[in-house]
Amino acid sequence: MPDDAQPPHARTTIFGEQHDRILERLVTLDADLSGYVRDFAYDTIYDHPGLDLKTKELIACALLVSLGSPPELRTHLRGALNAGATEAEVRGALLMCIPYVGFPRTIAGFEQLRAHLAGRAPTQER
Amino acid sequence: MPDDAQPPHARTTIFGEQHDRILERLVTLDADLSGYVRDFAYDTIYDHPGLDLKTKELIACALLVSLGSPPELRTHLRGALNAGATEAEVRGALLMCIPYVGFPRTIAGFEQLRAHLAGRAPTQER
Amino acid sequence: MPDDAQPPHARTTIFGEQHDRILERLVTLDADLSGYVRDFAYDTIYDHPGLDLKTKELIACALLVSLGSPPELRTHLRGALNAGATEAEVRGALLMCIPYVGFPRTIAGFEQLRAHLAGRAPTQER
Amino acid sequence: MPDDAQPPHARTTIFGEQHDRILERLVTLDADLSGYVRDFAYDTIYDHPGLDLKTKELIACALLVSLGSPPELRTHLRGALNAGATEAEVRGALLMCIPYVGFPRTIAGFEQLRAHLAGRAPTQER
Amino acid sequence: MPDDAQPPHARTTIFGEQHDRILERLVTLDADLSGYVRDFAYDTIYDHPGLDLKTKELIACALLVSLGSPPELRTHLRGALNAGATEAEVRGALLMCIPYVGFPRTIAGFEQLRAHLAGRAPTQER
Amino acid sequence: MPDDAQPPHARTTIFGEQHDRILERLVTLDADLSGYVRDFAYDTIYDHPGLDLKTKELIACALLVSLGSPPELRTHLRGALNAGATEAEVRGALLMCIPYVGFPRTIAGFEQLRAHLAGRAPTQER
Repeated sequence: MPDDAQPPHARTTIFGEQHDRILERLVTLDADLSGYVRDFAYDTIYDHPGLDLKTKELIACALLVSLGSPPELRTHLRGALNAGATEAEVRGALLMCIPYVGFPRTIAGFEQLRAHLAGRAPTQER
Repeated sequence: MPDDAQPPHARTTIFGEQHDRILERLVTLDADLSGYVRDFAYDTIYDHPGLDLKTKELIACALLVSLGSPPELRTHLRGALNAGATEAEVRGALLMCIPYVGFPRTIAGFEQLRAHLAGRAPTQER
Repeated sequence: MPDDAQPPHARTTIFGEQHDRILERLVTLDADLSGYVRDFAYDTIYDHPGLDLKTKELIACALLVSLGSPPELRTHLRGALNAGATEAEVRGALLMCIPYVGFPRTIAGFEQLRAHLAGRAPTQER
Repeated sequence: MPDDAQPPHARTTIFGEQHDRILERLVTLDADLSGYVRDFAYDTIYDHPGLDLKTKELIACALLVSLGSPPELRTHLRGALNAGATEAEVRGALLMCIPYVGFPRTIAGFEQLRAHLAGRAPTQER
Repeated sequence: MPDDAQPPHARTTIFGEQHDRILERLVTLDADLSGYVRDFAYDTIYDHPGLDLKTKELIACALLVSLGSPPELRTHLRGALNAGATEAEVRGALLMCIPYVGFPRTIAGFEQLRAHLAGRAPTQER
Repeated sequence: MPDDAQPPHARTTIFGEQHDRILERLVTLDADLSGYVRDFAYDTIYDHPGLDLKTKELIACALLVSLGSPPELRTHLRGALNAGATEAEVRGALLMCIPYVGFPRTIAGFEQLRAHLAGRAPTQER
């Protein structure tokens, strides 16, 4: 199938301008790990049809909140916005975490959203 | 404001026919707890505007998967379908859990989906 | 120091009549494990002065709720009551879990409390 | 009921002089979130009768340790002391975490206690 | 490379006689999920060189204990033994969980070991 | 039994030159806590025969990854290497975390491995 008939990889939309920087940083951690992230997490799971990318990203944000808001959350908050979520929708997704995983986990997620909207540089982002 | 001008509570859609049974069961656990579930979890958080109910329910399913798929997951798998999610969208939401929380958590979620689709009676559901 | 000058081990109060049954069951899992539970968990940590046993047990119940309410919760709900907590105090401790770890974890804890108060036989308890 | 007949809100004791700063910081994260923290977490759950505030705060500290000692722990270590816990009681509550959630989680809690007792400024506290 | 020059897939050793049953059960949950388990979890991660299979399986058992000992633990306790671990080594791996994730998680792991050694039928195993 | 007939404590190998610094730091957190870490976590659990130290340390690294890679992970990555693990074996142990606890937890572990191999000073290590 010719390239231009393929839908773009989800990671192109999610990472935006940070795409190469994020993947290269993963290579410095471990070459095999970076391949698994790109080929399995993104090009297999994220590219699986059946659910639109915006909803996938809002789910990803909630899951990252349940994990204690590691640096990946910054990437996927931006990814959700890149995929068409409004700021209100992103806030709505984070608020859903309160009854399921409690306030401390949720507040940590909102801390990352505030940092992102304040436009701080994505230094340790991944 | 007259009743018929209010949008229906999310819990009406989510619980469907199980509504009264689920709330009454919570009362047998603890009267205050059941009030908090109804008034805060559902009528405050779930009824918060900004995110459509279908997406809220898919997020809820993913969060419940991260928690090890307790009995609430059965309720919210059905709730997502009641709110307009297709089976493919529900499967897509569960698959998103793989890269974020791993296979064991995800498989437990699919076990509950299979039970629901097979039409087993919602005995211990909540 | 003569035996009768020593305060009783916390595990005597916590386990009550179930004491020997619980310890023997642990031996069937692994002899070393059972020794560590008795000598470290109970006779070192639980017998550490500085905090009264009732408060220790209420904290234990909350921690077990955070872990998803495994069978030990049943033991320590009874242990809290044995150590002088009222049913209202036990319910108050479980309700504290809502804002910190969310409703699903908390509800699972109340399920175990109900089972205990209903007097079901402590079969798989540990 | 006249104001002076009402018991003070738990958050007044817990937050002490930090009260307004903590609530205002939450507003900068999300206006609805801050309302939920104040109205539900504190004025509904924390003000629920049945368990004294000191015990509630010691339980809160243990739950925050189970969550990996996020910044809230600093607030509630101080809150427990404000509510009448001695330093020995706070240490006793943290030690209870060892058998239930292991040493790494517990040590992280003691790191925050040390920082608090050393009088470092509560910068990122919430 | 001819088939007989390839090392056997790890899943052949881990699953033993249960191989087809386990994979077919996963297909009934979700066809894509089962493919990801086989192709990524086993044939990519488990077959990655650099660490012997026995050690991989002992690590898997510990990780499953940290997850609350879901049904997969039974499979990997057997898998560790199939890969050459002695019962003493398996017990040693489970005991390592005590200081890192506490006693309740560890005890649940020993419960599964006992069930396996007692030869109960692997009904819901996966 | 004369000293030289005793095998060295595991903590001697694990901590290497950092031994006294790490234990003294724990004393500043809490005197009882430091005793429990030394006497139970290390001299009871880690010195339990039945599993070689290298495998114990690789399991410890995986468990610490499941906990979100707290500072202890740095210590035990070095401990695994001190106990005879090759860098490839350590990477293999971390990669095993992907299917069990997902990519974010695993990536955090590889971040600590990179920091260790880059020879940064173990400031807050414990």
